[in-house]
Amino acid sequence: MHHDRLRELLSAVHLGERNPAEVFAEFESLLLGFGTVATRDAVVDTDRARRCGFPEVVYCEGKQPASLAEIFETLHRNGQRAFGTRVSNEQAELLLERFPEAIHNPIGRTVRLDTERLPLSGYVPVVTAGTSDRPVAEEASETLAWMGVASALVQDVGVAGPHRLPQRLSSLENADAVVVVAGMEGALPSIVGGYVDCPVIAVPTSVGYGASFGGVAALLGMLNSCAANVTVVNIDAGFKGGYVAGLIGRRVHGSD
Amino acid sequence: MHHDRLRELLSAVHLGERNPAEVFAEFESLLLGFGTVATRDAVVDTDRARRCGFPEVVYCEGKQPASLAEIFETLHRNGQRAFGTRVSNEQAELLLERFPEAIHNPIGRTVRLDTERLPLSGYVPVVTAGTSDRPVAEEASETLAWMGVASALVQDVGVAGPHRLPQRLSSLENADAVVVVAGMEGALPSIVGGYVDCPVIAVPTSVGYGASFGGVAALLGMLNSCAANVTVVNIDAGFKGGYVAGLIGRRVHGSD
Amino acid sequence: MHHDRLRELLSAVHLGERNPAEVFAEFESLLLGFGTVATRDAVVDTDRARRCGFPEVVYCEGKQPASLAEIFETLHRNGQRAFGTRVSNEQAELLLERFPEAIHNPIGRTVRLDTERLPLSGYVPVVTAGTSDRPVAEEASETLAWMGVASALVQDVGVAGPHRLPQRLSSLENADAVVVVAGMEGALPSIVGGYVDCPVIAVPTSVGYGASFGGVAALLGMLNSCAANVTVVNIDAGFKGGYVAGLIGRRVHGSD
Amino acid sequence: MHHDRLRELLSAVHLGERNPAEVFAEFESLLLGFGTVATRDAVVDTDRARRCGFPEVVYCEGKQPASLAEIFETLHRNGQRAFGTRVSNEQAELLLERFPEAIHNPIGRTVRLDTERLPLSGYVPVVTAGTSDRPVAEEASETLAWMGVASALVQDVGVAGPHRLPQRLSSLENADAVVVVAGMEGALPSIVGGYVDCPVIAVPTSVGYGASFGGVAALLGMLNSCAANVTVVNIDAGFKGGYVAGLIGRRVHGSD
Amino acid sequence: MHHDRLRELLSAVHLGERNPAEVFAEFESLLLGFGTVATRDAVVDTDRARRCGFPEVVYCEGKQPASLAEIFETLHRNGQRAFGTRVSNEQAELLLERFPEAIHNPIGRTVRLDTERLPLSGYVPVVTAGTSDRPVAEEASETLAWMGVASALVQDVGVAGPHRLPQRLSSLENADAVVVVAGMEGALPSIVGGYVDCPVIAVPTSVGYGASFGGVAALLGMLNSCAANVTVVNIDAGFKGGYVAGLIGRRVHGSD
Amino acid sequence: MHHDRLRELLSAVHLGERNPAEVFAEFESLLLGFGTVATRDAVVDTDRARRCGFPEVVYCEGKQPASLAEIFETLHRNGQRAFGTRVSNEQAELLLERFPEAIHNPIGRTVRLDTERLPLSGYVPVVTAGTSDRPVAEEASETLAWMGVASALVQDVGVAGPHRLPQRLSSLENADAVVVVAGMEGALPSIVGGYVDCPVIAVPTSVGYGASFGGVAALLGMLNSCAANVTVVNIDAGFKGGYVAGLIGRRVHGSD
Amino acid sequence: MHHDRLRELLSAVHLGERNPAEVFAEFESLLLGFGTVATRDAVVDTDRARRCGFPEVVYCEGKQPASLAEIFETLHRNGQRAFGTRVSNEQAELLLERFPEAIHNPIGRTVRLDTERLPLSGYVPVVTAGTSDRPVAEEASETLAWMGVASALVQDVGVAGPHRLPQRLSSLENADAVVVVAGMEGALPSIVGGYVDCPVIAVPTSVGYGASFGGVAALLGMLNSCAANVTVVNIDAGFKGGYVAGLIGRRVHGSD
Amino acid sequence: MHHDRLRELLSAVHLGERNPAEVFAEFESLLLGFGTVATRDAVVDTDRARRCGFPEVVYCEGKQPASLAEIFETLHRNGQRAFGTRVSNEQAELLLERFPEAIHNPIGRTVRLDTERLPLSGYVPVVTAGTSDRPVAEEASETLAWMGVASALVQDVGVAGPHRLPQRLSSLENADAVVVVAGMEGALPSIVGGYVDCPVIAVPTSVGYGASFGGVAALLGMLNSCAANVTVVNIDAGFKGGYVAGLIGRRVHGSD
Repeated sequence: MHHDRLRELLSAVHLGERNPAEVFAEFESLLLGFGTVATRDAVVDTDRARRCGFPEVVYCEGKQPASLAEIFETLHRNGQRAFGTRVSNEQAELLLERFPEAIHNPIGRTVRLDTERLPLSGYVPVVTAGTSDRPVAEEASETLAWMGVASALVQDVGVAGPHRLPQRLSSLENADAVVVVAGMEGALPSIVGGYVDCPVIAVPTSVGYGASFGGVAALLGMLNSCAANVTVVNIDAGFKGGYVAGLIGRRVHGSD
Repeated sequence: MHHDRLRELLSAVHLGERNPAEVFAEFESLLLGFGTVATRDAVVDTDRARRCGFPEVVYCEGKQPASLAEIFETLHRNGQRAFGTRVSNEQAELLLERFPEAIHNPIGRTVRLDTERLPLSGYVPVVTAGTSDRPVAEEASETLAWMGVASALVQDVGVAGPHRLPQRLSSLENADAVVVVAGMEGALPSIVGGYVDCPVIAVPTSVGYGASFGGVAALLGMLNSCAANVTVVNIDAGFKGGYVAGLIGRRVHGSD
Repeated sequence: MHHDRLRELLSAVHLGERNPAEVFAEFESLLLGFGTVATRDAVVDTDRARRCGFPEVVYCEGKQPASLAEIFETLHRNGQRAFGTRVSNEQAELLLERFPEAIHNPIGRTVRLDTERLPLSGYVPVVTAGTSDRPVAEEASETLAWMGVASALVQDVGVAGPHRLPQRLSSLENADAVVVVAGMEGALPSIVGGYVDCPVIAVPTSVGYGASFGGVAALLGMLNSCAANVTVVNIDAGFKGGYVAGLIGRRVHGSD
Repeated sequence: MHHDRLRELLSAVHLGERNPAEVFAEFESLLLGFGTVATRDAVVDTDRARRCGFPEVVYCEGKQPASLAEIFETLHRNGQRAFGTRVSNEQAELLLERFPEAIHNPIGRTVRLDTERLPLSGYVPVVTAGTSDRPVAEEASETLAWMGVASALVQDVGVAGPHRLPQRLSSLENADAVVVVAGMEGALPSIVGGYVDCPVIAVPTSVGYGASFGGVAALLGMLNSCAANVTVVNIDAGFKGGYVAGLIGRRVHGSD
Repeated sequence: MHHDRLRELLSAVHLGERNPAEVFAEFESLLLGFGTVATRDAVVDTDRARRCGFPEVVYCEGKQPASLAEIFETLHRNGQRAFGTRVSNEQAELLLERFPEAIHNPIGRTVRLDTERLPLSGYVPVVTAGTSDRPVAEEASETLAWMGVASALVQDVGVAGPHRLPQRLSSLENADAVVVVAGMEGALPSIVGGYVDCPVIAVPTSVGYGASFGGVAALLGMLNSCAANVTVVNIDAGFKGGYVAGLIGRRVHGSD
Repeated sequence: MHHDRLRELLSAVHLGERNPAEVFAEFESLLLGFGTVATRDAVVDTDRARRCGFPEVVYCEGKQPASLAEIFETLHRNGQRAFGTRVSNEQAELLLERFPEAIHNPIGRTVRLDTERLPLSGYVPVVTAGTSDRPVAEEASETLAWMGVASALVQDVGVAGPHRLPQRLSSLENADAVVVVAGMEGALPSIVGGYVDCPVIAVPTSVGYGASFGGVAALLGMLNSCAANVTVVNIDAGFKGGYVAGLIGRRVHGSD
Repeated sequence: MHHDRLRELLSAVHLGERNPAEVFAEFESLLLGFGTVATRDAVVDTDRARRCGFPEVVYCEGKQPASLAEIFETLHRNGQRAFGTRVSNEQAELLLERFPEAIHNPIGRTVRLDTERLPLSGYVPVVTAGTSDRPVAEEASETLAWMGVASALVQDVGVAGPHRLPQRLSSLENADAVVVVAGMEGALPSIVGGYVDCPVIAVPTSVGYGASFGGVAALLGMLNSCAANVTVVNIDAGFKGGYVAGLIGRRVHGSD
Repeated sequence: MHHDRLRELLSAVHLGERNPAEVFAEFESLLLGFGTVATRDAVVDTDRARRCGFPEVVYCEGKQPASLAEIFETLHRNGQRAFGTRVSNEQAELLLERFPEAIHNPIGRTVRLDTERLPLSGYVPVVTAGTSDRPVAEEASETLAWMGVASALVQDVGVAGPHRLPQRLSSLENADAVVVVAGMEGALPSIVGGYVDCPVIAVPTSVGYGASFGGVAALLGMLNSCAANVTVVNIDAGFKGGYVAGLIGRRVHGSD
């Protein structure tokens, strides 16, 4: 990817403008990805925002609180806006102690630590089929907030009362993408997909019992959606649903 | 179940009004279900209409045409209205040769052979999500016709265009039950279930590809339906969907 | 669905008999389903009884007790007969405190809050294969009671002693539909289906171990039932089994 | 959605500016979705382009050629740019006979029939892991062509030679979204996701054998991708992958 | 089954040797299976030993201790040798309080209450692959003890040291049937099946982790055994494994 | 297993009664299983009848006809009664050409080649749920015939007409074991298990469609049977079902 | 990986010994993997032998014969020893026409085209459980031949006759690794694993029926093997099994 | 395997050099595997190191601490280097009390008790995809330490930042085999497999959520890896991964 810079550097060495040791260091950085910092237990990618638009997100499940705090500190020290998902209460407590300015969402189980507030850009509503889907929806909403994308939470839109959908879905107009969170049969994304002209990111949840098989029924329903604009992420993956939708929102409005 | 008749018969024997041999024959019939006739390969239940409201239905898959014809003849000879499902073209040909008055539906793969035309009673529409679901819907429709239940075929009602549902579903008013046939994500029964106040018999079909897994996605979607009036039968089981709906239709209108 | 009323209203506006604002309000109600009331966390459908014959049923799993009480109050205030399933003891306690007249079934995990007592209509027995299936059967029975359908609980009818079935199943005569609740192999619905001439609603339960896979064996057995009048709901879905059977009972006897 | 227009029309009727019959027709169209045309076997949605940005796409699997031709004609006559997927050779032959200007891609199994050529807008590369994934990739490419989105096919980028990825992936710079098509283990989307800052639409294919289980291994791999910008569609769903990516491309560049 | 007795009775009534009421009572008993006694929650089959060789066995999982004690009392009072499986410690405590002579096996989780000691007959060794399979093996052993079949426990016979099998398996000579209990890959029954000339009843266990999937790997391995004399029961079904093997043992030695 | 013989031989060598070379040959035979003969593609176990009671059975699927004939010849030459299962018509033709006395059952797809006729011993009926299960039942019957066990085929005993079971099952009295062959829901073994006091070998078949999943539903139903005397073999494994039942029959009657 | 060479080149440029353009070309080759050649449909990795020890292997399934021949030619022209797996007869015919010296194994479905004969090094026996596993074993054997590893095919070693294992397995002594190919229950690798002190590469095959589920039973059995030296590859993956074992053989003997 | 020794012994007996009783004892040991010692609950294989290169490893899950200690003592007393996996804290405590010199790794849940320190031989790095995979990696590392193989732990090498792989993977040069531990999508082994020329032992972990299905997604990804040198063990089977890799390392360097 860096062909031009490579040629430039070689030429500079050739002309004696740069010395080999210096250039070697830049080569390593360019080609081998030096933008990483090792903590005790993890390797933090501090170059990701430049490369992928947003910093690395921390999946907190099962991490030692102290080790997690070290990762947040590393990101923060390197000017990265830190965001953690699947944060336990114990983890959150320690993070908030260290960073009182961090924002903890206990329902969505997220913590975000902004270095600066991004100007809002783009619009992505998050829709749920039932109130039990809310934790996953909150994870998506927090992700959008961290990305600087405007959002709205539209809750408890069941498919069994389809006559009331037009009223409930009026807030979907002008969306850049819609995140639809649903468990059980997972039919809501298809319905929403037929109303809107933007991508629908479907997030199946493990809500349900018996033959819902922990979200498998919803996942399969969404993958087989007859609406062409529906795409799917993992079961309970509110973060990923929000992230992809947020990328679209930022991109459409030219902000990333 | 036949306690009273048992007492009567014993009393008649006691009083010398009936002889033991005669009564033994009736006992066998009452208690041990003598209403069966053995063909070469099968045992035909000629007593079923009395017991269950409708004669035995013949699942034709894999049966030898000659053996199948023998079963139809046995039913016909015993005054039963014969109905065969999953009939191959080869099987149908032989049946039609023997019984030119039989009605063959090559799409639904059924043959019915009425001894008399039942007066119509009850109303059960059959709804499909897409045109590929039609063979299963035809099997349901033929079943309803054989049961003497009025029916209507409402085709190609996708869930991705929900705004057009009210118009498409106007024929569902006054239904005693609705059969909804759908593959892929299987979301249509939930939608229909929210419009009507009668039972919805959902029939998942194997229409789809990839993660539809031969109808599993639709089956799971229907089992997890958030509409309380949705109940489910086997994948591609158009006959069973029609049969249960037909039982409801006949029962509501007091005709069986 | 409302074409005639639409024409009437337009005509009335045209003739100056109604003013546009009034008519607009009625339009919204007719077409967009205004019969909903938002609580803090949920959107309650107060129009459902008119549309689907029975009010919305509340799936209580995972709801905050306070939020659940608010939903019950909203339904009650709007004249709806409230019914909650999968009620935890903690939830039930709060509901009973607020509504001492409510009926709590701790085995079936239901709470119902009747505004008026419906006159009984129809008859639906609930049959279990073993005593462990009782909680699911109780959920079905409570649903039938809430719907105003007469019921009877026939417990512990195993299939391994088939000679005693005739005696046990005598209470199934005259049923409008039968709910059969069974775990493990799930064979009982087929047996019952061969005795009766009405629909059998089969409810698989998660009772069993090993290769019962949490009810999957029973579910598959029921979906593949060779009895034509057997239809199936989700694993452990006592409510849905009772509801569909109750719809049939009410409909046959002309009461809904 | 049409509150303002509703008020306007009522007011116009009130003021005598419009007559009720005219307004009734517009109401139906607005509220009930009259933009549908029934063919013999199907119901064609001719209003979809207005509502969802693009016309209805025809899933041709299992449709009678004559019936399919009728659907294409209906779309064409109503000014819709027709697009068919999973077209068999027999179907394609008849379509090309009727519409010699149609474009048939026999590898991707698509036929498209443009009424006008859309100006290109946006850029979406389609990447495959191996040459066997090409049919699915071609379906995606044709979809993008039909949507008027610029595309490029990058073939045979395996993950087992990761050192050559930078070279192969240089054409991904400046993409609005990337479609990644892969079977077997389905790891390529994660790799690509780490290089680019736009959404990656992952399309699992049924390429592989044994424990690939017809694409399930690839599907699960993609759903569990550790790259946050990866979202997934059904196995072999080249059309849907292309469609969602195309929506993003058009939207970013303000053309739809 | 009782044709001859039926004829006899009718004849006796006819000849005035018996009165109808008496005969009716015997009819009921013969034909409808009167040998059942209802407890509060269960229906106990007190006729089973006569019909099937052994009394009904009580599956205790999830039963109320008091209700369970009532079942044991009913069996005991009717002269049945009671046997309970999957007995919790709490249940066992109450049973032992009521019946101090009962035998509780806490590893196998069984309680048996013999009315008389059966003379031993037949020989069935129980073999385990590893020490973790012991609870299931104990359940099988207790079942055999209750049935009056001699048994031996051969533990920890892995398949990975096949050279030591001949030594370990010497106790299998002269067996009437062998119960083989194994988790993980479940290969031991095939090995044993190749050494012995009697039926091998294979009992898969849920011992293992990861891709053992709670015993599914062992179950599938056993079902696919290349040894022709291997037959299989449910995962962890020590009771059933012991019972079938015990039936064979008793039958071979003419004792049941 | 041969400790005594080992000691004897060593002693004989010690005493000079036998020479080392001779004894070495017997050792090999005793300890290392020399009773095998290699054909071109296979290794035939000619010692199995002595060890396991019956000769090795040949699974013919996919074997070259010539190679198969060679195996039959090897068995025949070594005095073994040959039996082949899953024989194709092409294979059968060649075998019958070589061994005109062989018995080919084209429905059960077996060929047996007896060296002598075994005197019949034991009695094992084979019961099917429906006529489509017949091929699997024929495989079981042929196996029993080859083993010299008396048998009877009881066909088309559905569970949906349970009142007729007593009549149909009268031939099960006096059975040593019963083979029950059933597809779809697989409930028949439980019913039969409640009637008889001997082991029931349940053979699930792949008969059915949709959620029968090629016999999985029947297999699970049988594994979860509530009848304690039911044990299970692989889907469509008529041979194994017959073999295990035959072992029991021979053993009970002291003939093997 | 090439730090030292990088420093050298920079230094050479600095010293004016090399010019930037030349060095740039070497950089690209070093860092970005230039050793690839594009054919019409594929990208051939001609650098793989240097990097991974062996050239790229061609998975031929579904490739056009002409396109496949082009790949073979590209490899051959670049001095690579070509090897194709899953070759159809049609593909093989064309390849043999072009390269008469190529070796086609129609059972294992492989074609190899050696540029030179590798001296043999290492020893890897390939063992099969039954004769039906032979095609997969042949694929493994051909792979070993192509890698220059000595091999031996030990066929038809069932686990049901374990006493004959010692005799059959004598050829496993001195192996560097063993490839064990087995379908059905897949127990053979555990047995072999207990005899040998080297790694066992287990290859499950799709041989079997019913609950073998196309090789899943064997795969699970092997993954759960209680022998610590057993590792597993994909179902029917004879090539991969042979390749990994071959790598070990070559490495142990210092030849690659 | 011991043909020569057999002949020698027979000859010695023949010549009167040895007496039969002595020789009989050696025969037993040679042929029947006497190198086992029975503890109360287990049978310890004390001959395994001689036969398979390493002593038997103890799977501690579910074993009673006292019983486990007895096994360790038996091994230790017989000069075996003991190693236990899946050790609970309670078990470890007792083992450390008895053997203070034992090494407990609480993260990897192992205890090893060396009798002597093996000289290091071979080199096997253990690579993880994320920090959550560490416990499984530690189990592998401990196994390698116990086997006397040099190792290195390379943590947190995600596939989503592929540009940084070259830097991270530099420690893989000169490896004899690589253990790669990964959950979620399990793509890392393919990437590593493309860099190295030695076998890669892939260990899927149960790390992940939703559609990771407890490690199934990773397992399937690894089985379908397009890198030819990747072989797979059970989910979370760090021990087996380390063991197979260690066997290769020891073998390459001639130390076992």
